[in-house]
Amino acid sequence: MTGNLLIRNVRPMGSAAADILIRNGRIARIEPGLSADGVATEDGGGRIVIPGLIEAHTHLDKSLLGMDWYRNEVGPLLIDKIDNERQAKIDLGIEPHRQSMRQALVSAAYGSTHIRSHVDIDTVHGVAGVEGIMRTREALRDVIDIELVAFPQSGLLARPGTLELMEKALEMGVEIVGGLDPSGIDRDPKGHLDIVFALAERFGRPVDIHLHETAELGAFSIELIVERTRALGMQGHVTVSHAFCLGMTDKAYVDRLIEALARHRIHIVTTGPASRPAPEIARLRAAGIIVGSGNDGFRDTWAPYGNGDMLERAVFLGLRNNFRRDDEVEVALDVCTHGGAALMAIDGYGLAPGCAGDLVLLEGRSLTEAVVTHAPRPLVVKRGTVVARAGKTLVEMP
Amino acid sequence: MTGNLLIRNVRPMGSAAADILIRNGRIARIEPGLSADGVATEDGGGRIVIPGLIEAHTHLDKSLLGMDWYRNEVGPLLIDKIDNERQAKIDLGIEPHRQSMRQALVSAAYGSTHIRSHVDIDTVHGVAGVEGIMRTREALRDVIDIELVAFPQSGLLARPGTLELMEKALEMGVEIVGGLDPSGIDRDPKGHLDIVFALAERFGRPVDIHLHETAELGAFSIELIVERTRALGMQGHVTVSHAFCLGMTDKAYVDRLIEALARHRIHIVTTGPASRPAPEIARLRAAGIIVGSGNDGFRDTWAPYGNGDMLERAVFLGLRNNFRRDDEVEVALDVCTHGGAALMAIDGYGLAPGCAGDLVLLEGRSLTEAVVTHAPRPLVVKRGTVVARAGKTLVEMP
Repeated sequence: MTGNLLIRNVRPMGSAAADILIRNGRIARIEPGLSADGVATEDGGGRIVIPGLIEAHTHLDKSLLGMDWYRNEVGPLLIDKIDNERQAKIDLGIEPHRQSMRQALVSAAYGSTHIRSHVDIDTVHGVAGVEGIMRTREALRDVIDIELVAFPQSGLLARPGTLELMEKALEMGVEIVGGLDPSGIDRDPKGHLDIVFALAERFGRPVDIHLHETAELGAFSIELIVERTRALGMQGHVTVSHAFCLGMTDKAYVDRLIEALARHRIHIVTTGPASRPAPEIARLRAAGIIVGSGNDGFRDTWAPYGNGDMLERAVFLGLRNNFRRDDEVEVALDVCTHGGAALMAIDGYGLAPGCAGDLVLLEGRSLTEAVVTHAPRPLVVKRGTVVARAGKTLVEMP
Repeated sequence: MTGNLLIRNVRPMGSAAADILIRNGRIARIEPGLSADGVATEDGGGRIVIPGLIEAHTHLDKSLLGMDWYRNEVGPLLIDKIDNERQAKIDLGIEPHRQSMRQALVSAAYGSTHIRSHVDIDTVHGVAGVEGIMRTREALRDVIDIELVAFPQSGLLARPGTLELMEKALEMGVEIVGGLDPSGIDRDPKGHLDIVFALAERFGRPVDIHLHETAELGAFSIELIVERTRALGMQGHVTVSHAFCLGMTDKAYVDRLIEALARHRIHIVTTGPASRPAPEIARLRAAGIIVGSGNDGFRDTWAPYGNGDMLERAVFLGLRNNFRRDDEVEVALDVCTHGGAALMAIDGYGLAPGCAGDLVLLEGRSLTEAVVTHAPRPLVVKRGTVVARAGKTLVEMP
């Protein structure tokens, strides 16, 4: 569905007030004093307008939103959390369709218009997560765009049968091939990455790999990813999520990695983690690397934090990167908008005539104030149709 | 002013529901089915109740709350921010009484019942900050308790005349002697700390020192602070705020520092900074060190972030310390309640008969849910009198 809408008196990216006319789901004109001409009209009240926020890394199939309180007593290791979650899905009844509906609507209420969601593929749950989220994206096709990454959360080589399930997920229409800590989880960096990139080549799909491995171990994985990107000519189609290793202390080594990532147009997603080494946003962007962000999983069996708000995520990016100046906070916001959109290769993203009518109004006198206060969004528009108002979606949460 | 109040149907620290009777500002009884006996009654609606939140490190004299938006274009160094702020106070008209009223009321609305505020003492502004906050604490004496630290923000030795102003502030009734980066700012660690501790000895006051110095430089300052604490018998009366150096990578050195801090009962305040090395809360507490927290300055010329909410601060502590389990998140909350109270030596703090009637109700099924959602506080009570309701103080903000 595409809508026609005139939004009066809004300030694009905090600049002077104008009206925005959307026709057939695309921005037709941005200028002061536009005529309604029979088009539905919203009063922006002089608020800031930006293009839709981009949730470039989350897990729609595993939040506990709306369920009983889960008391987290999980062990300290990554594998503890993975094993605990695989069982908790059964014990707690974490139903992927219902939970992804809830989470996607929360995202839409906060002004996200696009989501890249990883979805667990494993030998216990098969492709149930894919089926559940696919139902959600069909149900919410007029509210928010969702793309999927087939994610072997429990390991690929480590659990025989997972590869076949990954193939099935890709045949079902999952857009992106995922991967996970080739050494840390699958214990075979070459083997794991060969499979991931072989799937990508065979199905003609991009790649997005979770890489939690720190320091030299993660750096080695980055080197292997670069080598395969180059060999397959996949420049521009590979993303590394988290990439904690880029925050390692050996600056000269990181410089070499960044140069290689930039040369092969490999994108980075960071959540701005407070307790981990993290890629430095300014340094990556200065090298020309596209950087996006996401809330990752939230309110799940991994940790209780987070709420799905990409403006709050921009705060976390700012705090992690010691962004204090307004122009720096605006960089954090850019990562959560244009950065994610570039990484996901979203067609017609932006705030200009010809772009999609995906907009969000913000409270605040400046972009920075809008980010740091992250008050409920007055209005969210998807392809010219209002989908959320005063912090609530028009579609009710199940 | 002390009040009488019966709060029905609340869950102390998330446990089974009970009623809390406050008489003459102190908790008289906590048990189910108490009789009102003519005392004003509030219905707690089954919500969690905790003792008042403790803001153990902030700067009441310098927020920009309620003022025009300030576009931050400050340079990268600590001294850039110090020099910029000293001038901005004049250029922007940051009036300490008005701004401290605003900030203290924001804190009260979020359920803080006690504040330790540093207040700038320098040769440009003299003791104007002290005078302004003292007017505020008198005006809000029935709303929130405020104690002050005389803080030589622009340096002590570096700016002749500051020592005399520090003396004046202490004579005016400022409770605590402050200090700041003895090497980093004053360029003379021995000289700076000798003056700070001499003031403490002469006036019989505790000490609270801002220490941003990292790694070995900060560690050396810690050693000097320990030596003076021991020499003057000031065990239990010295706090080091920030102490980024305790997050240094040389674990064996940090162990020795922690042992010395614990032996001399020196307290640590941490904000859980995402972009700096930081003291590990669990490690300090395991050694017996009292750890408190605070929001530090917020919405000021240093950075635009923050809002004065100590529950949100508990989230930042949790994220920084990788606290994921519920029992870990409860530690973060304990730092923001009992930790700060112990550090500030607050008389009669807690949730038991005989303790002060300083309480805050929280939304959430569990303590962890209350922290991670940090929804507006339904009710805040100071010495048995309701001071805030549904996220708003009864006293209006100037």
